[in-house]
Amino acid sequence: MADPRDQTLAEASAPSRYRLVDCDVHPITKRGLAELRPFLSQAEQRRLGLDERRNLTTIGHREAVSIPRNMLYVNQAGVLRDDARAPDGSAPGADPAFTARQLLDGNGIDRAVLIGGEVLGLGAMPDPDAAAMIASAYNRWLATTWFDADDRYRGYIVVGARDPLLAAREIRRAAEDRRFVGVLLPLTDTLMGLRHYYPIYEAANELGLPVAVHPNSGEGIFRTSPPMAGGTPTYYVEWHSGLSQVFQANVISLVCHGVFERFPNLKVIVTEGGLGWIPDVMWRLDKNVRGLRDEVPWVRRLPSEYILDHVRFTTQPLPEPKRRHHLHVLCEIAHAERTLMFSSDYPHWDFDDPRHALGTLPAAIRQRVSSENAVETYGDRL
Amino acid sequence: MADPRDQTLAEASAPSRYRLVDCDVHPITKRGLAELRPFLSQAEQRRLGLDERRNLTTIGHREAVSIPRNMLYVNQAGVLRDDARAPDGSAPGADPAFTARQLLDGNGIDRAVLIGGEVLGLGAMPDPDAAAMIASAYNRWLATTWFDADDRYRGYIVVGARDPLLAAREIRRAAEDRRFVGVLLPLTDTLMGLRHYYPIYEAANELGLPVAVHPNSGEGIFRTSPPMAGGTPTYYVEWHSGLSQVFQANVISLVCHGVFERFPNLKVIVTEGGLGWIPDVMWRLDKNVRGLRDEVPWVRRLPSEYILDHVRFTTQPLPEPKRRHHLHVLCEIAHAERTLMFSSDYPHWDFDDPRHALGTLPAAIRQRVSSENAVETYGDRL
Repeated sequence: MADPRDQTLAEASAPSRYRLVDCDVHPITKRGLAELRPFLSQAEQRRLGLDERRNLTTIGHREAVSIPRNMLYVNQAGVLRDDARAPDGSAPGADPAFTARQLLDGNGIDRAVLIGGEVLGLGAMPDPDAAAMIASAYNRWLATTWFDADDRYRGYIVVGARDPLLAAREIRRAAEDRRFVGVLLPLTDTLMGLRHYYPIYEAANELGLPVAVHPNSGEGIFRTSPPMAGGTPTYYVEWHSGLSQVFQANVISLVCHGVFERFPNLKVIVTEGGLGWIPDVMWRLDKNVRGLRDEVPWVRRLPSEYILDHVRFTTQPLPEPKRRHHLHVLCEIAHAERTLMFSSDYPHWDFDDPRHALGTLPAAIRQRVSSENAVETYGDRL
Repeated sequence: MADPRDQTLAEASAPSRYRLVDCDVHPITKRGLAELRPFLSQAEQRRLGLDERRNLTTIGHREAVSIPRNMLYVNQAGVLRDDARAPDGSAPGADPAFTARQLLDGNGIDRAVLIGGEVLGLGAMPDPDAAAMIASAYNRWLATTWFDADDRYRGYIVVGARDPLLAAREIRRAAEDRRFVGVLLPLTDTLMGLRHYYPIYEAANELGLPVAVHPNSGEGIFRTSPPMAGGTPTYYVEWHSGLSQVFQANVISLVCHGVFERFPNLKVIVTEGGLGWIPDVMWRLDKNVRGLRDEVPWVRRLPSEYILDHVRFTTQPLPEPKRRHHLHVLCEIAHAERTLMFSSDYPHWDFDDPRHALGTLPAAIRQRVSSENAVETYGDRL
C-alpha cells in the first residue's frame, strides 16, 4: 500500500527554514516548585504543601521537592553540567538568558524544544490530582519564564498520566499557545499501548501534536515495575545502560495494541531512549506478528512500517561503536533519514555537542537530522 | 592486554569432530512429574504431592504439574510442533527415539544439548527446597531416559536458583556424569550479577561448565518483576517480541557486577535470547562505563570484551531483516565467528531448520556456528 509519509517526505526535502533544531533541552527551576505559586490557586498551593506557611521547598535542602526524583541511583559525577550555571549561581540550566547564550548562540541552534527538568518524574507521583495541578502550573510557568525570554524556545505540554481525561483537557488548554509543539508524557508503570492513555492520544491526534517520552524516575524506579526486565538494577551505570528497555517495551506495546491504526495522525517521539535497539525490535516484531497474527488482527501492516511512520528518535546519547561504519548501517536500518532528530540533552552530564554528534552521522542525512525531520514532526508550530 | 581466548580460538580452528551441534533441544515428559518418582525418596514424593495416594499429576488435565508454566499468554498456534509427536501419541518431544530419528538423523546433527522442557519454569517456584528436589530428580531422569537412549544426547544440569548452596551441591553431584555439559539456571526475579548466585558460578567455574539461561516462566511472568521493562505486556506476541530484554538486563548485570573478573573461567550461554540487541548493549555499556568508572571500578576491561569472551548466544530465533546484509553486519559486530552457536529449539513452534538458518549466515562463519563454537564452549564433555 502507498506510504502516506512519502508525500510529506517529498515536501520536506525543500530546504529547511532552520539549520539546527535541538529536540531535548531541559529547563530547571531556580527555586524549586515554589516558582509555580503564581500559577496555582490558594487551594492548590495548600494541597501541594506550597503555601507560604508550610513552605516545604525551602526547608532544608533544595531536593525536598514534591516530584519524585531518581535518588536511588547515584551518578558520582552529578547529572548536570557544572559549566551550565549562570553567573547568579543558580542551578545549571536554570537561567533562560544564559542557556540562550551558551547553548543556542554557542552552537547555532535556531529552535530548542524544552522538556521540563523537574517534571520528568511526574509519572512516579501516585496522586493523579496533584500531578495534574503541577503539570498545568508548570506549563504556564514554562510559557512565561522561558518562551517569553527568547523566541527560539519551544516546548512540550507536560501532563500527569494517571488521569488521562484531565491530561487531555490540559493538552487542549495549553495548545492554544502555539509555542507548545508537543505533549510530554512522563511514563508510569502502565505500558503505552493500553487503553488508559487513549484520551491523551485522541487529543494529540486531533491537534497534530507529537507525544514525547523521556527517561525519568517514573518508569520503574519508584513503582512496581523495575526499570529493567528481570529485576531491579543495582548501579546507576546498569540502570543507564538498560534504560532503553522501557522504550523498547513501549514501542512494542504501541504496535501490538494497534494504537497507530486507531490514531493514524499520532507521532511518538522517543527522546534520549537510544537507537541501537531499533533493528532488534523491528525484526522481532515483524517475524512474530507474521507468525502470530491471529492474536492481534488489528495489526494490519508490518510492525516496522508503523515504527518508521509513527515513531521518531532523538540522537543523544548517540551510539559510539568502534567502527563508524556500524553506526551508519544502524542509520540505514532505522531509516534515520526520516526518523532521527538531533538533541543535545543540555544541561545534562552526557550532553552531546552538535558538531561532534552530527559529524559522526552519514553526510547524506545530516541536514535531515539537524532540522528537516524536526520540522516535519513538529510542523508549523516549530 | 592479551586476550585469553586467542589461543583457544587458534586451537579450535582445527577441523571440528562434529559437523552440526544443536544447542537447544527440549525433552518433554510423557506423564508429567510422575516420571520423576523413581528418583525421589518417599518423603520427597509426599512433599511434592507426587506420592501414589495424592497423585496430582494424573488428576484432570496433564497441565496440573507443580512447576509453574506460562499459561497467562496464549499462543493460538500452540507452543509445540504437532509433527514432533511419536506414533505412541505422547506429547511432541517426549520420545527419545523418535526425536533421535526426526531431529538428529533427519538433520545430520551429531550432538544435541538437551534443555529440560518442564523445568524451564523452575525459577518461578517459590519453595527453594521443592525446586532443589525436582531439579535433582530431573537430572537423574534425564540421564536415564534420554542420555542412555542415544549417545548423541548431552544435556544441562538444571538447578533451583533460590538456594544457591543446594544448587552448587547438585552441580558437583551431577557433573560426575560427563554427559552433562553445562548448568541450566532457570531465572528468577534476581538479576544474574547479584551475589546470591556466586556459589553457583563458583561450582561452574571450577568444573568448567558453562551456565545457560533460556526463556521460561520464572523471569517475570509470575514474579514481581514484569517480563518487560516498564510494565506487564498484554499479548503473547508482545511478551515474545520483548523477551530478549531479560537477557539484555542480565548481561548488563553480569558485566557491571564484575562477575567475569571474579570467575574468569565462567561462560554464560544466552539460549533463545535473540541477537539483535547485542550491539546496543555493548555500545551503551562501553560508553557508560567509560563515563562512570568510579561507580564500578572492578570493571577493568571494556564491557564488550567481557561479553565477547564470556557470553555465548544461540541462533534460534534468528533475526530475519529484509536485507540479508544487515544480518551479516550484526554477525560482524557480535563477533558471531566466536560467540554464536546453532540451535533449533526443537520441538517448539518456532523451530529453526538448520539448512535454512545456517544458509542465511555468512559462509565464512558457518562451520564455527554449526559446531566449532559449541566444541570450544562445552569442551571435552561434548
